[in-house]
Amino acid sequence: MELLVVGSIGLDYVETPFGKVENALGGAASYIALSASYFSKSVGVVAVIGDDFPKEHLKMLEDHNVDIDNIEVVIGGKTFRWGGRYHYDLNVRDTLYTDLNVFENFNPVIPEHYKKNSFVILGNILPSLQLKVLDQLEENNFVVCDTMNLWIETTLDDLKKVIKRTNVLIINDSEARLLSKEANLIKAARIIREMGPEYLIIKKGEHGALLFNNGSIFSAPAYPLESIFDPTGAGDTFLGGFTGYLHKTNDTSFENMKRAVIYGSAMASFCVEQFSTKGLENLDKLQIYDRFMEFKELSRFEDE
Amino acid sequence: MELLVVGSIGLDYVETPFGKVENALGGAASYIALSASYFSKSVGVVAVIGDDFPKEHLKMLEDHNVDIDNIEVVIGGKTFRWGGRYHYDLNVRDTLYTDLNVFENFNPVIPEHYKKNSFVILGNILPSLQLKVLDQLEENNFVVCDTMNLWIETTLDDLKKVIKRTNVLIINDSEARLLSKEANLIKAARIIREMGPEYLIIKKGEHGALLFNNGSIFSAPAYPLESIFDPTGAGDTFLGGFTGYLHKTNDTSFENMKRAVIYGSAMASFCVEQFSTKGLENLDKLQIYDRFMEFKELSRFEDE
Repeated sequence: MELLVVGSIGLDYVETPFGKVENALGGAASYIALSASYFSKSVGVVAVIGDDFPKEHLKMLEDHNVDIDNIEVVIGGKTFRWGGRYHYDLNVRDTLYTDLNVFENFNPVIPEHYKKNSFVILGNILPSLQLKVLDQLEENNFVVCDTMNLWIETTLDDLKKVIKRTNVLIINDSEARLLSKEANLIKAARIIREMGPEYLIIKKGEHGALLFNNGSIFSAPAYPLESIFDPTGAGDTFLGGFTGYLHKTNDTSFENMKRAVIYGSAMASFCVEQFSTKGLENLDKLQIYDRFMEFKELSRFEDE
Repeated sequence: MELLVVGSIGLDYVETPFGKVENALGGAASYIALSASYFSKSVGVVAVIGDDFPKEHLKMLEDHNVDIDNIEVVIGGKTFRWGGRYHYDLNVRDTLYTDLNVFENFNPVIPEHYKKNSFVILGNILPSLQLKVLDQLEENNFVVCDTMNLWIETTLDDLKKVIKRTNVLIINDSEARLLSKEANLIKAARIIREMGPEYLIIKKGEHGALLFNNGSIFSAPAYPLESIFDPTGAGDTFLGGFTGYLHKTNDTSFENMKRAVIYGSAMASFCVEQFSTKGLENLDKLQIYDRFMEFKELSRFEDE
């Protein structure tokens, strides 16, 4: 059983009130794969880069046992680049530029051994590309999908087709409200689950996350961070930790998915403590487990 | 050991997308006392009303074992009146009018038997009045205090004197940010706790509540309500349930305070299901305990 990640790999320019970084490893698939690699030994990535992409980043992923054989390198092509600037409270960011470059013609081709019995993470890319991936899958896969406001606003029909074929949809609270046209998140969740996904996770940033299944809800706390250094990639890191844990345990029950939500949240809390993927590159399992237990203590109370 | 509530009692006009109600029982002390009465058999109220105040409301409080002997009735005076209209998403409300009436000259006089060994709830009134109450207290009291944006903006010096002498300060997230001048709630909590209160609770509405003590944080989930009928009084109801439970158990440890936060949240979830105090008038202990256990299930997860 494999874990396949499909998404972007890029080079980021990020400016926060605390500093800036250039040519840093970015893109959803980078964060997802790195985060998942702490749980799973067989994470594979399908993505595209140019031949300007620094080898050190590929080596770093390989050092984490990520299968990079299906990252297509376009000779003479330039890697996807994104630049962003965060405001003082880190909740608002300006996109400075988005240069799709080789990503513009990305045509994900799924290798045979990922088509069956796999956990598949559809990173936040154009829904029509996510559909292309789904069309190549064969049987017995478990699909976890991310999306964004832009696709809800511009390609809703395709997105709805993707959601229908998704086991777990992971979106944030503003996306949930936009997709459901409903302000109350509990009602919004019911409306979205009727679109198809068995499980829905609504991420609420500093307020934690909610997991929904048939009539069941789990409320996960947020890790109490006094300062967030760089929020870039936090959602992707959640996605990777969440699915990595499901893959490792091969258990998609509601009870186990709660733990997966906490592991995803724990990984995201490491991510935002440093620029780019730096906070995820040198973790060990004990650190991750300790943070999991901190989450547990944070929300624990006993009845009398 | 007694539980004393000082605050407003009023008559409300409330309009929500679901209906409206006139001359309904309102005011912080009404919600606080009623909510606390489910935990504590000796809740007393210090407040002021006019002789236009309907006797049925006083009888209702008496039927819940609330000591109403110290609610001053001003002959020929008119009761405090408030009118408000909630918008579609219930997070925004317009105040239609605030007629202080007899409340304008409220001078809280604390009876002897409440001055020692009591739990004292300072409802959201002018900080100079809260100070008047504190000045009458003698020894060994446990003070729980609420406030609002208006007092942070207009009478900060008095408010800071109150906070310094408070054991538990309960405010919402926007008030915490305003009071601390800090956007990050975890940092904001540290700044506010340095102003004096041993414990701080930050209420986050649909996102639950956070309890802070020396280096310890407890994150309480919100009850997943699909529809909120009338949010008026939810914060006061939280305050009453929280303090009522502390009073009943006579235990102000962090562990017990966590349970108190959940009981406060449970009571608030009943409050918003109906207009005015209606959702709080006919509860039984089993219902309240069941909802407490629902909160527990909502945030429970096991490590492997």
